[in-house]
Amino acid sequence: MIPTVEWKEGVIRLLDQSQLPGHTELLECKDVEAVTSAIQGLKVRGAPAIGVTAAMGVALGAQSVFETDVPTFEQKVLAICDQLAATRPTAVNLFWAIARMKGVVRKNRDCPVSEIQARLVQEALAIQREDIVTCKAMGQKGAYLIKDGHNVLTHCNAGALATAGYGTALGVVRAASEQGKKVHVFVNETRPVLQGARLTAWELMEDGIPVTLITDSMAGAVMQQGKIDLCVVGADRIAANGDVANKIGTYAVAVLAKAHHIPFYVAAPSSTIDVSTPSGSAIPIEERPGHEVTTINGEAWIAPKGVAVFNPAFDVTPAEYITGIITERGLVTPDRIAETFKG
Amino acid sequence: MIPTVEWKEGVIRLLDQSQLPGHTELLECKDVEAVTSAIQGLKVRGAPAIGVTAAMGVALGAQSVFETDVPTFEQKVLAICDQLAATRPTAVNLFWAIARMKGVVRKNRDCPVSEIQARLVQEALAIQREDIVTCKAMGQKGAYLIKDGHNVLTHCNAGALATAGYGTALGVVRAASEQGKKVHVFVNETRPVLQGARLTAWELMEDGIPVTLITDSMAGAVMQQGKIDLCVVGADRIAANGDVANKIGTYAVAVLAKAHHIPFYVAAPSSTIDVSTPSGSAIPIEERPGHEVTTINGEAWIAPKGVAVFNPAFDVTPAEYITGIITERGLVTPDRIAETFKG
Repeated sequence: MIPTVEWKEGVIRLLDQSQLPGHTELLECKDVEAVTSAIQGLKVRGAPAIGVTAAMGVALGAQSVFETDVPTFEQKVLAICDQLAATRPTAVNLFWAIARMKGVVRKNRDCPVSEIQARLVQEALAIQREDIVTCKAMGQKGAYLIKDGHNVLTHCNAGALATAGYGTALGVVRAASEQGKKVHVFVNETRPVLQGARLTAWELMEDGIPVTLITDSMAGAVMQQGKIDLCVVGADRIAANGDVANKIGTYAVAVLAKAHHIPFYVAAPSSTIDVSTPSGSAIPIEERPGHEVTTINGEAWIAPKGVAVFNPAFDVTPAEYITGIITERGLVTPDRIAETFKG
Repeated sequence: MIPTVEWKEGVIRLLDQSQLPGHTELLECKDVEAVTSAIQGLKVRGAPAIGVTAAMGVALGAQSVFETDVPTFEQKVLAICDQLAATRPTAVNLFWAIARMKGVVRKNRDCPVSEIQARLVQEALAIQREDIVTCKAMGQKGAYLIKDGHNVLTHCNAGALATAGYGTALGVVRAASEQGKKVHVFVNETRPVLQGARLTAWELMEDGIPVTLITDSMAGAVMQQGKIDLCVVGADRIAANGDVANKIGTYAVAVLAKAHHIPFYVAAPSSTIDVSTPSGSAIPIEERPGHEVTTINGEAWIAPKGVAVFNPAFDVTPAEYITGIITERGLVTPDRIAETFKG
């Protein structure tokens, strides 16, 4: 499978997810503006993948800062960090990755600029490598929750495409499948941007894991019919109290799961856990343009022109709806997030 | 506003709802095949509108039966009834309307064929007239539930377009608005066929009633944010125990409403109540083609080609989730459906 994001000799190569599954297009970002635009335009999405891309964006931008004076260099790199941090507000992995990159500059102030530039590239590549390792660990730690013959419901895309590879929620599904268990996945199409239909269904089909696509509105009926054994989704930010921000619609799935006594799991790396945010109400929720709802790809209109639209990209699932959070360290109940990840 | 369905000198003229809101096209049905195809192809939809159209379809078909022998005529008209009854399985108004048309034939066996043909047309027009009167009565009886300043959530289209005019759920909203109350409606877009986005948002905009379009996946988050005062939807069939079949996604809205202590109302004429069906589990649920989910209008693909799809067109909301059912006779709690409407 084509990697979500790659560092290729000073160029960031992204698989343009806005074109999937119809077109497999690679997007080469040669400057910070291109990276910024790719993140904002959902060419790359998914909290861990955004983190990796932003880190590479800092490394890329730093290479174009032609300064030998370290304090001036640092100031310009911090401005690049700010620019990348302003792309999207909800997923904390973005800020976490940028903080790591800032740390590299801070810790290497005694080095020449060229050395700091090289170490920024190394750090970005480390973040990318660690992300895959983390996803595989999550898969290993969480796979036992999925039993042979299980039907799993997922929402949005928390797969290889949302990460540097393997995936969070889909990593758990993949690991169970690799253990020889029969797993069937119901995928919510995930309006408005259709990450479930376009990305998750595609990824699972590529891997030969049986998948059935449904509209988001069908999740309740499918649960009512006894067709779902467990739900697993990714996360964009997990607050100290265990509240989880994730793609819009996740909260509804969690409420429906609880009403049907179906376990509801969140799979996310520790980089998604933000103990500095006390609860979900403090998580900034991005609102995106109405045309994501009223048109398909900004072209074909599927609603009356001029209609008012509310388009929050994420929602918050309170901790009480979450059976457990699968991290690279294992399964944690949401009430134990703060003590487990406090630093 | 253009009527949903009209009888024009022996031709049934339908507003083609599959083309709305982009195109206002009138479809002229000159034979039973055209009516059958229009119902199956969702050119006309909504339980009461389907009933009216099918009744007109019987009248239209009967006019083309060139028989003077009444028993032969009756046999051929019953075959037409069977053909129209086979179009869609869930909405009971279809069978109710056809039963009324069969009754006209049965009660007029002593008349010449030309007289029976004329009475069939009269009956179809009566069903159409009564439907508008019934919707207005429902609006009058239900409007008190909507207070000044209320935010109402609805799913699918239970408006003028779903009926001969005025609407069921939207009739209640219209009546409240006509009483001078400020009402704002959040509309679920209602995937896969987008009746909420394409029809309900359009109808409300035409009427100048404030509307905000959301994806189905946002209903939970919007409720969580305290933005909804009550939900009102239509129905395709109400069983004796008060269970309600309605457009897929209705059940999820009802579960979410209950979790947020928001009243959940169903508005439907008594012709939607089917006391011969004991409970929701006995209501046949239509499954429609996967291309409704994987493409927009059977053209632009929004999912991987070849993906498996589950596409039930309706779901069943158990009586326990329903605050009340608004009929032309007034508000009834679901547990009192059987005794109130037993004959």
